[in-house]
Amino acid sequence: MNFTKGHGSKNDFICFADPDGQIELTAEQVRFLCDRRAGIGADGILRAVRLKHIPPAQLPAELFAQDPDTWFMDYRNADGTMAEMCGNGLRVFTRFLIDSGLTEGPTVNVATRAGMRSGRILADGSVEASLGKVTLGTPDSVTIVAGGRRFSGTPADVGNPHAVCFTTGIAQINITKQPSWLPPKAFPNGVNVEFVEDLGPGKLNLRVHERGSGETLACGTGVVAAAAVAATRWPEPVQIVEVNVPGGTLYVRFFAGNAYLIGPAVLTFSGAL
Amino acid sequence: MNFTKGHGSKNDFICFADPDGQIELTAEQVRFLCDRRAGIGADGILRAVRLKHIPPAQLPAELFAQDPDTWFMDYRNADGTMAEMCGNGLRVFTRFLIDSGLTEGPTVNVATRAGMRSGRILADGSVEASLGKVTLGTPDSVTIVAGGRRFSGTPADVGNPHAVCFTTGIAQINITKQPSWLPPKAFPNGVNVEFVEDLGPGKLNLRVHERGSGETLACGTGVVAAAAVAATRWPEPVQIVEVNVPGGTLYVRFFAGNAYLIGPAVLTFSGAL
Repeated sequence: MNFTKGHGSKNDFICFADPDGQIELTAEQVRFLCDRRAGIGADGILRAVRLKHIPPAQLPAELFAQDPDTWFMDYRNADGTMAEMCGNGLRVFTRFLIDSGLTEGPTVNVATRAGMRSGRILADGSVEASLGKVTLGTPDSVTIVAGGRRFSGTPADVGNPHAVCFTTGIAQINITKQPSWLPPKAFPNGVNVEFVEDLGPGKLNLRVHERGSGETLACGTGVVAAAAVAATRWPEPVQIVEVNVPGGTLYVRFFAGNAYLIGPAVLTFSGAL
Repeated sequence: MNFTKGHGSKNDFICFADPDGQIELTAEQVRFLCDRRAGIGADGILRAVRLKHIPPAQLPAELFAQDPDTWFMDYRNADGTMAEMCGNGLRVFTRFLIDSGLTEGPTVNVATRAGMRSGRILADGSVEASLGKVTLGTPDSVTIVAGGRRFSGTPADVGNPHAVCFTTGIAQINITKQPSWLPPKAFPNGVNVEFVEDLGPGKLNLRVHERGSGETLACGTGVVAAAAVAATRWPEPVQIVEVNVPGGTLYVRFFAGNAYLIGPAVLTFSGAL
């Protein structure tokens, strides 16, 4: 198996091309490949497969009308589970498709389990991913329990489910385990949890626990979810939100109802297993 | 740069061939390559270089008389520092030299900063490394401080310095930081610290903090150091010592004054950076 390793703000992925949909990884294989000592090591895996080879039952209806040769981003978490969307994954996937010659840049249409998205290489070399519409839930309507502490959270959907908790002193929160939530029915498919410090209009600090991967150094959809909730707290609209995560700095802009995630995405090495 | 990733009981290494000694890595480059998200990721790096290209000042005198084309194992810790010897590294290095066609097996002579050593592929596919003579210090002559607790330790030298602490409940010891030691002059070049449960003649459980790498899932010289000290505690000589580490099980045998470390060593993938 040939692969390329890449990361976006140290959120890292194993990318590989499987145009004809012949390499369906089992959960056990995903866990092995993502093992940082016995395997290759990554937060997740991005398989590039032509849309026509994905079973329709796995797809949202809006994709049925798309070109069947569109690249589909088959994202798997390090624990072997599937996820609808991965924001930094989409940025690294964009870089992978273009740098591998699988498609031409600078803009790429990508099919995902959350619907059609796009990636784009910007003039300064950073990569922007369109993450679609963010749907916000009722502010502070859920309770998140992490490290023995309780936080008020706002649900946000960016193709995958999030709970955004504004608080202070996020460096001290223990998030080695999956936080729990109340009411239990709030997130029937699990949830990614963001702990956010509001530094004033346009600027946030963030730590995240990703469902299926544990704490990661950056979570693209989490960054977008936090920026979208934060924007409702600030008195004036902001053009762009700067979000500092443990792996670096990402930017979010909102345009015509869609959210865009911007930051570095680099391919580090290619290998054969 | 072409490389091969391998591990011995999940103690993992980046291996690469540099026969003519043209790729001298800086500490910063080592740290980048060993970064598990932004680089390749490993506990350390093993560079295969012909002995004649290593500055004599870095070598013990016994190597001056060796064949200048002997493979030298240039081992670097993940933090960029040099180390004299690495037991699992030598097992993975043996596998790398043979599987890459750099030398013929099943037995390989390897020059190291600790002197001449050898590796050997056994009939069952496991790899044995000769680690030379173990020199023991005075029993319980040092005090190790880890996670706010104190332990009695016995110094042991396996080409690199160790402190072996027999205790119970090793799973609960906090070794996220480098343990300190008393008296300070006991280990002028730092020390690897083993926390060991004695399960009776021939069997140990072990956790280790490796100088320069943090807690690792297996440390070959640490396993040998612990077995050598343990052997002095048991009433009868044992042929072979089974040592359970977080990454698996390793075996140690003593023959004609030398220690041998035995266990699996596998190459997982090859890549280009």
